[in-house]
Amino acid sequence: MATIEELKLRVRELENELIKCKQKQCAAEDAQNQQLHRPKIDRMSAEVVDSNPYSRLMALKRMGIVDDYEKIRTFTVAVVGVGGVGSVTAEMLTRCGIGKLLLFDYDKVELANMNRLFFQPHQAGLSKVEAAEHTLRSINPDVSFETHNYNITTMDNFTHFMERISSGGLEEGQPVDLILSCVDNFEARMAINTACNELGRIWMESGVSENAVSGHIQLIIPGETACFACAPPLVVAANIDEKTLKREGVCAASLPTTMGVVAGLLVQNVLKFLLKFGTVSYYLGYNAMQDFFPTMAMKANPQCSDRYCRRQQEEYKRKEAERPKVEAVQEEEEEEVVHEDNEWGENAADRYASEQCRIGSCSSFFVIFLCINTRLYGAGIELVSEVTDAELQAASGAVPDLPEGITVAYTIPVEDTESGDTVGETEQSLEDLMAQMRKL
Amino acid sequence: MATIEELKLRVRELENELIKCKQKQCAAEDAQNQQLHRPKIDRMSAEVVDSNPYSRLMALKRMGIVDDYEKIRTFTVAVVGVGGVGSVTAEMLTRCGIGKLLLFDYDKVELANMNRLFFQPHQAGLSKVEAAEHTLRSINPDVSFETHNYNITTMDNFTHFMERISSGGLEEGQPVDLILSCVDNFEARMAINTACNELGRIWMESGVSENAVSGHIQLIIPGETACFACAPPLVVAANIDEKTLKREGVCAASLPTTMGVVAGLLVQNVLKFLLKFGTVSYYLGYNAMQDFFPTMAMKANPQCSDRYCRRQQEEYKRKEAERPKVEAVQEEEEEEVVHEDNEWGENAADRYASEQCRIGSCSSFFVIFLCINTRLYGAGIELVSEVTDAELQAASGAVPDLPEGITVAYTIPVEDTESGDTVGETEQSLEDLMAQMRKL
Repeated sequence: MATIEELKLRVRELENELIKCKQKQCAAEDAQNQQLHRPKIDRMSAEVVDSNPYSRLMALKRMGIVDDYEKIRTFTVAVVGVGGVGSVTAEMLTRCGIGKLLLFDYDKVELANMNRLFFQPHQAGLSKVEAAEHTLRSINPDVSFETHNYNITTMDNFTHFMERISSGGLEEGQPVDLILSCVDNFEARMAINTACNELGRIWMESGVSENAVSGHIQLIIPGETACFACAPPLVVAANIDEKTLKREGVCAASLPTTMGVVAGLLVQNVLKFLLKFGTVSYYLGYNAMQDFFPTMAMKANPQCSDRYCRRQQEEYKRKEAERPKVEAVQEEEEEEVVHEDNEWGENAADRYASEQCRIGSCSSFFVIFLCINTRLYGAGIELVSEVTDAELQAASGAVPDLPEGITVAYTIPVEDTESGDTVGETEQSLEDLMAQMRKL
Repeated sequence: MATIEELKLRVRELENELIKCKQKQCAAEDAQNQQLHRPKIDRMSAEVVDSNPYSRLMALKRMGIVDDYEKIRTFTVAVVGVGGVGSVTAEMLTRCGIGKLLLFDYDKVELANMNRLFFQPHQAGLSKVEAAEHTLRSINPDVSFETHNYNITTMDNFTHFMERISSGGLEEGQPVDLILSCVDNFEARMAINTACNELGRIWMESGVSENAVSGHIQLIIPGETACFACAPPLVVAANIDEKTLKREGVCAASLPTTMGVVAGLLVQNVLKFLLKFGTVSYYLGYNAMQDFFPTMAMKANPQCSDRYCRRQQEEYKRKEAERPKVEAVQEEEEEEVVHEDNEWGENAADRYASEQCRIGSCSSFFVIFLCINTRLYGAGIELVSEVTDAELQAASGAVPDLPEGITVAYTIPVEDTESGDTVGETEQSLEDLMAQMRKL
């Protein structure tokens, strides 16, 4: 039986031990908190000191590249798909000091994702949006985040997705400034396309091929440039869940290099678009095997299957007709001048219109585009410059020999065999040009 | 005065609280340990399960891109400079499962680095190599790391650097397989160049311009391709410490996008070189303003100021002379075939030699290279395609008007005015080709 003195001693011992334990816990929490947050910064400064996280970005003004870098804080960007491309895209925008990011993804982090940048092994099992928000907040606490852990393609989620891109801007009720598609399947791309056509929101597409060695980015301005339904991929998976495909052994390859390059090209295009510098690319491909980077522009298809796209085209035509006419010569001169004082939208439209003059007829251009740049299949992922003549011929005529569940989404009508010839010719001359380029 | 019962109750309460506190502490420690390490993996598996960190890389074999992906584990790569490009380069190689990485840098992580990928605010104050090793080990514990927190350009460190690239391979005593220059100044590039010429080691150069919107990567095979001393930059900072330049307000701009793209292109070239797939680029530039990616190859300069370069050239010539002759027609055909069964070195040499045939004389090519691609100044950083005709003319004749401390390192001899004309012509035709490309 313990005496009162013994018990009192025991109480003191326990109290001391508990205090020590709690102090350790506090220190660990403090360290964690310190790790998570640097203080917020009210105003971007150009001061050249080691403690200024924005000095190297504000230097873009002194270097004459960007007129008003601080404006980056006023923009909201939605990133749909936080995988190999989307996560790096979100990190780049966060480090650039974007105003607000909306992240959409329904997947969980897995060890199988560790061959790409951004996620770390200890995050395995967390939802991608949750893990991403945690990391991004600790990188830059000045950015606002809004995350949605759902699949945008289901009916309810799609409605909510539409609502958020319409009113999830930095100031609630304002639309987001740009939507970025970093998804890995056809269905999700089509959902974004449908939403953006209906809402008339500008977006950028991105994709990496299943064999990991090519990718692309694309700017889509509803009514002006071709939407995702204007030029559907050559072949797509029909009603097959991507996960099923993967489990049956159709596991796509991926590389941190290709994903990093595509994310870098995408965010560079975003910065040029939002901050008005350089030339914004309409389409930029990346073929890693040959280090070849095709660029092009494609106008909207008047026969597009998306009625909202056709409506946006009417709207665009109406606006174009209302604008004061510019002489042809002057327009050509304007082409050289990039990002003048007028709104980018108008400027882009000008340049786009003049580019169309040179491109010629829409239908032949479509075929070239298909031939050189698109072969979306399996999970709706794109390859650059890898469609063989035989495959194209097959797609133009009979249905090509494809794995079970994969169907042709777009065949060139029989009456278009003439354009088929055009393809051969044009592709040839592109290769000639490339050969000549290489000689230099 | 407390009773025995009250004291007993208090002891029980404290004991319970202490247990809870210690449990929390253990859980936190467990989490931290788990956070730092996934178990090492003995053999790369191609199994398609979420828990396999190599499944998407091993899929490159099934996709027909890489013959033997597992070979990645046998290679050692040295990364000199762990900044905006070097850190992402190291992360990509780590995620790809490289055998061993040697990291060299003498800088500390600062908040001013947060506009580029990789480092996080809580690492501010740590040495870059220490912070990088910690993060990279947690990402992939299968990789071996060796870090050196010093400036390779001082005499003692340079000797040690030479020793490490000669014998710091996966198996001590073996040389590293490839050296990557991710430094931001002329002096460090020259040090790497000197070491690699003397040791006959293949290396890759990378760089990003001071205005953050262009960059390049370059493969250098001593004796075969131009070394850094063969084609010195147009203008360089003379005897000015980079830090001094920065403090005086010459703070270089930087972007996570450009740095990410350059790191991605660099590591892609490393993978193609080590794993023998695709076409390895000799030189690949990135102009972010126009999304233009110039490529070219440049042979070694017989008048190079580096005597080890000249010695390597002799060695290369001797080896070439010993090789059995191949007919010209056959050589042209070989050009199309990339990475045959023979050693890459030989294959590269073949392709390089045949490329040289098309390029023509060395001196005129030098001028084209300077004109289109190089303007290293300030801290020895490169701009792509931004030298004006006036500047080139100035550099060819009198010394251009440069800021204090910046001197011309390379002037075109007066007797070369003929080549000066060639430049104008060639550049013109390049632009014509670009215009034609855009039309497609």
